Amino acid sequence: MQRVALTGGAGFIGSALAERLAGDAELVVVDNFSTGRRAFVEQLLERPGVRLVEGDVLDMELLVEAFDGCDTVVHLAANADVRYGLERPEHDLVQNAISTSRVLEAMRMTGVRRIAFASTGSVYGEPELFPTPEACPFPVQTSLYATSKLAAEGLIASYCHGLGFTGVVFRFVSVLGERYTHGHLIDFYRALRRDPNRLQVLGNGRQAKSYLYVQDCVDGILTGIATRRDPGFAVYNLGTDETLLVDESVALVAAHLGVEPAVEYAGGRRGWPGDSPHILLDCTRIRALGWQPRVPIREAVSRTLAWFDENPDVIDEPAR
Amino acid sequence: MQRVALTGGAGFIGSALAERLAGDAELVVVDNFSTGRRAFVEQLLERPGVRLVEGDVLDMELLVEAFDGCDTVVHLAANADVRYGLERPEHDLVQNAISTSRVLEAMRMTGVRRIAFASTGSVYGEPELFPTPEACPFPVQTSLYATSKLAAEGLIASYCHGLGFTGVVFRFVSVLGERYTHGHLIDFYRALRRDPNRLQVLGNGRQAKSYLYVQDCVDGILTGIATRRDPGFAVYNLGTDETLLVDESVALVAAHLGVEPAVEYAGGRRGWPGDSPHILLDCTRIRALGWQPRVPIREAVSRTLAWFDENPDVIDEPAR
Repeated sequence: MQRVALTGGAGFIGSALAERLAGDAELVVVDNFSTGRRAFVEQLLERPGVRLVEGDVLDMELLVEAFDGCDTVVHLAANADVRYGLERPEHDLVQNAISTSRVLEAMRMTGVRRIAFASTGSVYGEPELFPTPEACPFPVQTSLYATSKLAAEGLIASYCHGLGFTGVVFRFVSVLGERYTHGHLIDFYRALRRDPNRLQVLGNGRQAKSYLYVQDCVDGILTGIATRRDPGFAVYNLGTDETLLVDESVALVAAHLGVEPAVEYAGGRRGWPGDSPHILLDCTRIRALGWQPRVPIREAVSRTLAWFDENPDVIDEPAR
Repeated sequence: MQRVALTGGAGFIGSALAERLAGDAELVVVDNFSTGRRAFVEQLLERPGVRLVEGDVLDMELLVEAFDGCDTVVHLAANADVRYGLERPEHDLVQNAISTSRVLEAMRMTGVRRIAFASTGSVYGEPELFPTPEACPFPVQTSLYATSKLAAEGLIASYCHGLGFTGVVFRFVSVLGERYTHGHLIDFYRALRRDPNRLQVLGNGRQAKSYLYVQDCVDGILTGIATRRDPGFAVYNLGTDETLLVDESVALVAAHLGVEPAVEYAGGRRGWPGDSPHILLDCTRIRALGWQPRVPIREAVSRTLAWFDENPDVIDEPAR
């Protein structure tokens, strides 16, 4: 039986992946519960072969303890918020790049040589080519978040190149579904609960973005991990072939709540500096491995909103 | 008159650039003399309008003091050795990416909004396209050094995108000429002075690389800086249209010293993990601004070797 360590294993995507892996693999969930939640892993941790190592991915001793005896590390722990980069310089670099450096070193120290990593479609900046393939023209970065994720990709690739590691990197679009606790849908939902008559929207509402349902995302990660077993480095885009306008998201949330708000736009093509107004990834490469998304974006939105209804405690807590 | 701060201003390229700028601009040379040398700037510092701020680019207070009142920062200070990345994880990230983050923050704090940055052709990894243009297919990184330089590029691009900075990034090939103190030429020269009968060469000697004479490099930097004045981000390759085999470098050094060593190859296409066996950059973009290299590679090698002859103290000191 495999043993897999999962950093960020109590998070939105991490806990969903953990539930799918448990039973097929022994699991070590690493999380500091800064974004991840105990409620997401409580049941999981009662299953045999699942263990929690609570702490930070910057803590080398903790990583070494967690990775010892593992075959694979899935490194999902990160600062996942693209929006506040310039307000917190170094934060993204430390949380996403330095942490990945330590994950890789802890792997080297414990003899674990296979890593899967959650990167982002944001590394394409504002591409000129849509859908954007992995080998598109060398992009210009537009956010500290994407810069730090790209640095983490480069660290992993360098360990593959120099030390014979196996690295599988996934460049996600934004992920939706059960346990989604952070992003525009929850922002709109919270705001409309507070005031059903008006809604402030960042940008002009015309940003067109692809989204992916969390279980499709997990399928993609599992497909990539299962396929890449030899030493080497591979990058896979993970997204759907559709996009949704921010205005359409607003309409879906409003309809779900049965409200008709006046929408006020902050204006501009972008929601914030580093926001990419058009995200659509070419997923030919991972589709060639047999993966395809099963849940359309509108259905993914709908399931996310249903989960909000069922988890008012998450909605009522302050945004973080 | 402009005021320019030059990090790494006592280094190989930095001191040459400083000498060219002095007179046209007030200069603040920032250096911690870890790689840079006092001898390279002693005369320069006697000129009016040139000031030294001694210390590390990780020291924010020092940076703020140095940048205050400047128009432009030229950020050259870095760990410039691609070779030992995997032996010193985090070193490249801290020295090249975190330091650049602090340089940018110190610029923001002092209102300096224009930065030129020394990146590297190594960010192309092992490209499939030669000569390699700036917008070649999104490369896979092969070294922690290049990963950290690419991260620094991304930080600069993000400040340009989000805060209206002006950023000019130069991706150099290896630079040769007076004050070259680090690299294969000095390694060969030292080794053959020690033992003229045999020489150990990393790799198979067939690595074909482009090199650039230091004054041509400085011309390129000055051209880029002078041309890009509006907010925005630009990347320029800087190299020659020729390559030189490692074997040819060996032959030039041996002929210069009048020795005929038996060459022993460590073997393999690469000198070390992350060494790119073929480097040739497409410099159309900077040539369109009127720049062109004036000194052919063999002449650049010859001038470097002549400088070694005139500076036996540099040759006699231990490699560092």
